[in-house]
Amino acid sequence: MKVNPAKVLPGEDDIRKAFDRISNHINLTPVLTSQTLNEITGASIFFKCENFQKAGAFKFRGASNALSLLSFEQAEKGVCTHSSGNHAQALTLAARSRSIPAFIVMPENAPSVKVDAVKQYGGNITFCKPTLEARESTLQQIQEQTGATFIHPYNNIQVIEGQASCFYEMLGQLNHPPDAVVVPVGGGGLLSGTGLAAKYFSPTTKVIGAEPLMANDAWKSFREKRFVPSKDPQTIADGLRTSLGDITFPIILNQVHDILTASEEGIIKAMFLIWERMKIVVEPSAAVVLAVLMEHPSVFAGKNIAAIFSGGNVDLKDLPWF
Amino acid sequence: MKVNPAKVLPGEDDIRKAFDRISNHINLTPVLTSQTLNEITGASIFFKCENFQKAGAFKFRGASNALSLLSFEQAEKGVCTHSSGNHAQALTLAARSRSIPAFIVMPENAPSVKVDAVKQYGGNITFCKPTLEARESTLQQIQEQTGATFIHPYNNIQVIEGQASCFYEMLGQLNHPPDAVVVPVGGGGLLSGTGLAAKYFSPTTKVIGAEPLMANDAWKSFREKRFVPSKDPQTIADGLRTSLGDITFPIILNQVHDILTASEEGIIKAMFLIWERMKIVVEPSAAVVLAVLMEHPSVFAGKNIAAIFSGGNVDLKDLPWF
Repeated sequence: MKVNPAKVLPGEDDIRKAFDRISNHINLTPVLTSQTLNEITGASIFFKCENFQKAGAFKFRGASNALSLLSFEQAEKGVCTHSSGNHAQALTLAARSRSIPAFIVMPENAPSVKVDAVKQYGGNITFCKPTLEARESTLQQIQEQTGATFIHPYNNIQVIEGQASCFYEMLGQLNHPPDAVVVPVGGGGLLSGTGLAAKYFSPTTKVIGAEPLMANDAWKSFREKRFVPSKDPQTIADGLRTSLGDITFPIILNQVHDILTASEEGIIKAMFLIWERMKIVVEPSAAVVLAVLMEHPSVFAGKNIAAIFSGGNVDLKDLPWF
Repeated sequence: MKVNPAKVLPGEDDIRKAFDRISNHINLTPVLTSQTLNEITGASIFFKCENFQKAGAFKFRGASNALSLLSFEQAEKGVCTHSSGNHAQALTLAARSRSIPAFIVMPENAPSVKVDAVKQYGGNITFCKPTLEARESTLQQIQEQTGATFIHPYNNIQVIEGQASCFYEMLGQLNHPPDAVVVPVGGGGLLSGTGLAAKYFSPTTKVIGAEPLMANDAWKSFREKRFVPSKDPQTIADGLRTSLGDITFPIILNQVHDILTASEEGIIKAMFLIWERMKIVVEPSAAVVLAVLMEHPSVFAGKNIAAIFSGGNVDLKDLPWF
């Protein structure tokens, strides 16, 4: 993959318009604080709770924005994607609310809890072998058969604009611009969107990506300023196993101040603390932000920190502390 | 126990004043809704989330109100209670915030997660044999030694006024008075407080107690209009195993419209649904309200329902669906 700045980056007005476009469809998610977690980290943390977003994750924002920009002819034929995770659920639910079909390609070994969620929202699932090749060729077949529009999980300008709406919305919920915003990074949709939102609406805020040490391809790519692919990492943070995209990576290089990593043990510990102290259900990929805050205290001590809990879709019958 | 109306019932103004007294100390807990749970029950439900209250349960309201009414001389000597549950944590935290000691009598077989929580808030724990006699005699010794004021978990007018503040506060968060409010019942502090708040501030709202079928002493007492004690029931809803008190029971007889029960299976199913769909951590005693809504659909279909999630203190390493 070559690193080229995307030709047409979303501007200030594009993010505002994306937010206006989707704001009647998304949940206004709360910003929560926790005295205990402030004491543990030494920072003053404001958690944006996208685990309360529709379909359980911020992904609904990007999917909604991409869908809302389809022409009538496009919309009629539906949308498609390959994903075994939150994007599949988000796209299916967003499509259902517009009464158009969603075609989802999933690996045949996808967890049943995720398959069931997509089915429940009315998605048309096609299973394929669990390889990138099978995934892409199956998706191509689906596109040819149905004429559905492919909505990439993150490497898509409209999706990035939608994800940018999260921090944009959050800024309106805070009394002061935060010193930093900490965001999980997998494919980079949320991180690049947050980077753009910070650039336009809170330029004094530093943007920090949070990544599992065991899936540190974005950390490497950021430091080496060249794309380093993700190689099937085994982190518990299943939403953060993907590689960056050729649209998200250049935005991240330009708009993000740093990427910090957290250990698997730290992610599980953070997830447990969030459930126990904040009484909310977050998935491992969301807990990475607190794990980063806890494992890098000197970076954040005494600061006002915004942190985005990306989602809460977790198999309650398969928890990491059991 | 004889059933006599309490001599001095809290009036409209007492509840307003209790709320004003404690409102700077408690969390303003959110009211959440869930489309999925509305579809499942056929009702329109507004959940008051006291799992987000300080110390993780509504009990902090009553404890705070009782504490705030102590004289300087009383406060200096501290407070005491016997409890292995949420009241112990709430009283300890409320005492800590006023820098006065809290003496807690706990049975020696209390779960370590509850003992640890009280210790963490700085409570002075005295263990006793797990019998009512040992509990009461140990508490009496503590009182004699320390001069601490006994704050009963529910059979105490100031505690009831504090619990009444929950529904009072909730009414200010709703656009319309609900058709009914559904509240868990153990000792009856929250239910009697809610009954009084409804009487004064939302007289068209029916007040419904929610109780585990396996601990249906309040259900029996209500139907037979005579006190039926709780006999060591084994329900998973550990906060609802206690008997009514001679102050709470007459208020319940006068102000509550009905008490409905739920099965153990229904409580666990409801708890799982709340975690999975609402992404919040509630304890079994809180899930009883949804279990009642699900097991008595004809009572609630098409109605606007307020429901109080009483707390979220649960041992995350010992979940009922594992």
